[in-house]
Amino acid sequence: MERVDESASEPVPVPADRLQEEVRRVMEQARELQEFGSSLLWKVSNEEQSLRQNAISFESSIRRLRSMITSLVAQKLLDRSLANKYEEDLQRAICIIAEGDAAAFLPAKYQGRFLRKFLGPINVRASRKEVQLKVKEEYNSYRDRTALLFLLFPLTLLVLRSWVWDGCLPAFPVQLYQAWLLFLYTGLAMRENILRANGSDIRPWWVHHHYCAIAMALISITWEIEGQPNCAQKQKGVELFLQWAMMQGVVMLLQNRYQRQRLYTRIALGKANRMDVVWGEASGVDGQLWILCPIFFLMQGFEAYVGLQFLKSAFAGIVFKWQVICCGILLVVMAIGNFINTIQSLMTKSRIKAKMKGTKSKKESD
Amino acid sequence: MERVDESASEPVPVPADRLQEEVRRVMEQARELQEFGSSLLWKVSNEEQSLRQNAISFESSIRRLRSMITSLVAQKLLDRSLANKYEEDLQRAICIIAEGDAAAFLPAKYQGRFLRKFLGPINVRASRKEVQLKVKEEYNSYRDRTALLFLLFPLTLLVLRSWVWDGCLPAFPVQLYQAWLLFLYTGLAMRENILRANGSDIRPWWVHHHYCAIAMALISITWEIEGQPNCAQKQKGVELFLQWAMMQGVVMLLQNRYQRQRLYTRIALGKANRMDVVWGEASGVDGQLWILCPIFFLMQGFEAYVGLQFLKSAFAGIVFKWQVICCGILLVVMAIGNFINTIQSLMTKSRIKAKMKGTKSKKESD
Repeated sequence: MERVDESASEPVPVPADRLQEEVRRVMEQARELQEFGSSLLWKVSNEEQSLRQNAISFESSIRRLRSMITSLVAQKLLDRSLANKYEEDLQRAICIIAEGDAAAFLPAKYQGRFLRKFLGPINVRASRKEVQLKVKEEYNSYRDRTALLFLLFPLTLLVLRSWVWDGCLPAFPVQLYQAWLLFLYTGLAMRENILRANGSDIRPWWVHHHYCAIAMALISITWEIEGQPNCAQKQKGVELFLQWAMMQGVVMLLQNRYQRQRLYTRIALGKANRMDVVWGEASGVDGQLWILCPIFFLMQGFEAYVGLQFLKSAFAGIVFKWQVICCGILLVVMAIGNFINTIQSLMTKSRIKAKMKGTKSKKESD
Repeated sequence: MERVDESASEPVPVPADRLQEEVRRVMEQARELQEFGSSLLWKVSNEEQSLRQNAISFESSIRRLRSMITSLVAQKLLDRSLANKYEEDLQRAICIIAEGDAAAFLPAKYQGRFLRKFLGPINVRASRKEVQLKVKEEYNSYRDRTALLFLLFPLTLLVLRSWVWDGCLPAFPVQLYQAWLLFLYTGLAMRENILRANGSDIRPWWVHHHYCAIAMALISITWEIEGQPNCAQKQKGVELFLQWAMMQGVVMLLQNRYQRQRLYTRIALGKANRMDVVWGEASGVDGQLWILCPIFFLMQGFEAYVGLQFLKSAFAGIVFKWQVICCGILLVVMAIGNFINTIQSLMTKSRIKAKMKGTKSKKESD
């Protein structure tokens, strides 16, 4: 303001006079915007504060009631079926908070160590439900795009190996592929951590699986691929790995289709009745899941087979390197973990389904 | 609600009766919280909307006025010194928005491709100025912690090389070190992109410099380090690189001290007068900068020397590998880029200083 007044006392040409007025107006506008923003921020942070306090008291109520239910059941003062009903009500109340708009203002429960290591303590939580769903949709489309590369990259390597490279892979393109895998898995692990921070119910194992994959990509980059003589024997492991990666590309494409449909079901159900989302997840796309499962198990079996082949070739002294042993162990661990988690997912899904049926028939009989 | 009423019609033992009331109350509380959150979200997004529209009209005003000033000066209808004054006022108005609380609600200008590749389209902008400054502070403390490792890791390798490994580095620890560098530089590049999204004025080169460093770390992991015979000659490049890395650790520690003080000055100035921040950056810690500069130039010289040594050893046929050539080129590029950007920073700083002095003396003469 001071400066503007100063310049007002100087003699200026006519068009600049209008200009001066306009500059003054813009500065005024900036100040107004700043004040508006500052008051909005103040208001929001006040209301957030009270919301957060309410949420804390809500959470302690839930904890108290749960322990009360447990102790009453233990003392046989409460019927088990009634206890289950209360437990369901409490779960429903938690869902109202977790799935609703209040969640946006509550401090995030989960911010993985992985993200913090790379990004520092920033907030990766989207404030609106629509944005969260958009993040998930983008994650799926990212998976779609990479699944195609996941299929084409090893396919190209294998085709070139037979047709151009006389059955012997040169080191550079394989290392390039592994560097791409490293980048890809790091990106996936980060996106999955972000999804978890945004309240996704992704199983922790799938994220851990990507950590294993990151380790394997990093290790296999250091693994110098040897050529002639005895190329076919030395590169047997790499060949198997590429074949498995190719198969995985196909499975990823199928899986993405399934998960995308699940998300659409979720959005549709969310629009119809937000609270039914958690129970409705298993519905609608079961048919496809039962086609996918045998393929999953086949893949997991092949993954374990490749891992065991690595270990065998290492201990038979064909390619005795620490990289081969580590990759072998990692492949076997990932195969076992994938298998256990697929089984657990299926069990959870069928349990929820049974529960839904039970609730339905009970409601009908009532 | 329906379910709670249902159970009320059943005969239940006494403590469960109280329990039922409490469960009902908790569900009520959840619903209230949800409604409160939802109305808050609605209110905030409405006000944000109007703020954003105002900001857009503000920005177009600024653009219009700037082009008006330029054309008036070109037509000699406006005095150049007056134009400069107006230009300064506009800059001041932009700063009010950019540095103030309104910025939190405006869409982020910069979200780097690098972050999007890894994280997808999430918002990494902190909504409050204090949080933004905290992010910067955490970045500096991260740099502090890593600078120490930056110094100790290569030092340990070099000490073990002389005392334990008989002057010949084994491949594994060096690769481990390079994997750590890869992780470190990726983290730094991400944090710097986040800082830029939060309005930091970090020079783009320093981020690009870290991209180069990421590439170099990745390449050097694939570079199989050979041992005996002729170990000393083959590992000359690695040795030089480790020495340079050690020196860089020391420089990073010094640099961090400088930048931390700059940040504190900034915070202090921000508290005293938010608007002076941009002009006041150069003040207060110049003394240290003139000690740091020769060290920077020395480091850059040594970096270029190491790069040239790599290239020389590759073309002299001692270690002819693509990795050595790539690392050599990257080191030289980084050294040149660092040099140019250090010079440019110094020039900007001295220009701002001259301007500040000019303004001061003008005010005094006025």
